[in-house]
Amino acid sequence: MAREDDAMPDIAEVTMVDVLRAVADPIRLRIVQTLADGLPHGKCGTHWDFGVHKSTMTHHFRTLRQAGLTRTVVSGRTHTVELRRDELDVRFPGLIDALTTAAGVPQRQG
Amino acid sequence: MAREDDAMPDIAEVTMVDVLRAVADPIRLRIVQTLADGLPHGKCGTHWDFGVHKSTMTHHFRTLRQAGLTRTVVSGRTHTVELRRDELDVRFPGLIDALTTAAGVPQRQG
Repeated sequence: MAREDDAMPDIAEVTMVDVLRAVADPIRLRIVQTLADGLPHGKCGTHWDFGVHKSTMTHHFRTLRQAGLTRTVVSGRTHTVELRRDELDVRFPGLIDALTTAAGVPQRQG
Repeated sequence: MAREDDAMPDIAEVTMVDVLRAVADPIRLRIVQTLADGLPHGKCGTHWDFGVHKSTMTHHFRTLRQAGLTRTVVSGRTHTVELRRDELDVRFPGLIDALTTAAGVPQRQG
């Protein structure tokens, strides 16, 4: 059952600028790079240890979902987040790959 | 001779987030998609008819240059702008391709 906090846009309504705005942030980019493994991730996992407050992470997860990048999957009391990889790859060919490939390139912390 | 208004960062200092912030704008994304033809473009060409003031375009060109995406080439009194394609393709493999490929996909105006 979809609830307000799970709402996400139809992929056909998502523009490239929407996606770029969402990932143009160091933490949100790292979240997307982590989710690029294709697996569902808990929102409280230790791999999200980015040194920011939980409410900040909640904001980042919401931004990604509302921009069309991720979906929330609810199973009982468990909420997981995953990348809408298949849809994104059709709508923006190569984009997620490009965002992920460069993850291996040393980047100045910005 | 490099002048202040031609200054651009070393590509090694450019982060993916810098690039994403620069292209996370409808007009700047279209500029990059146009420049992806690999040719130098005059800053006043008719293909920049985006319905915004010249000073706004100047701001967008400056933003792209300072983010490391473009270079200004000065020859006498002629200034042209071009994408730093080769450098970007090495530093962020596939990214410019991905930004350009989707240019052919119908996008909602955002």
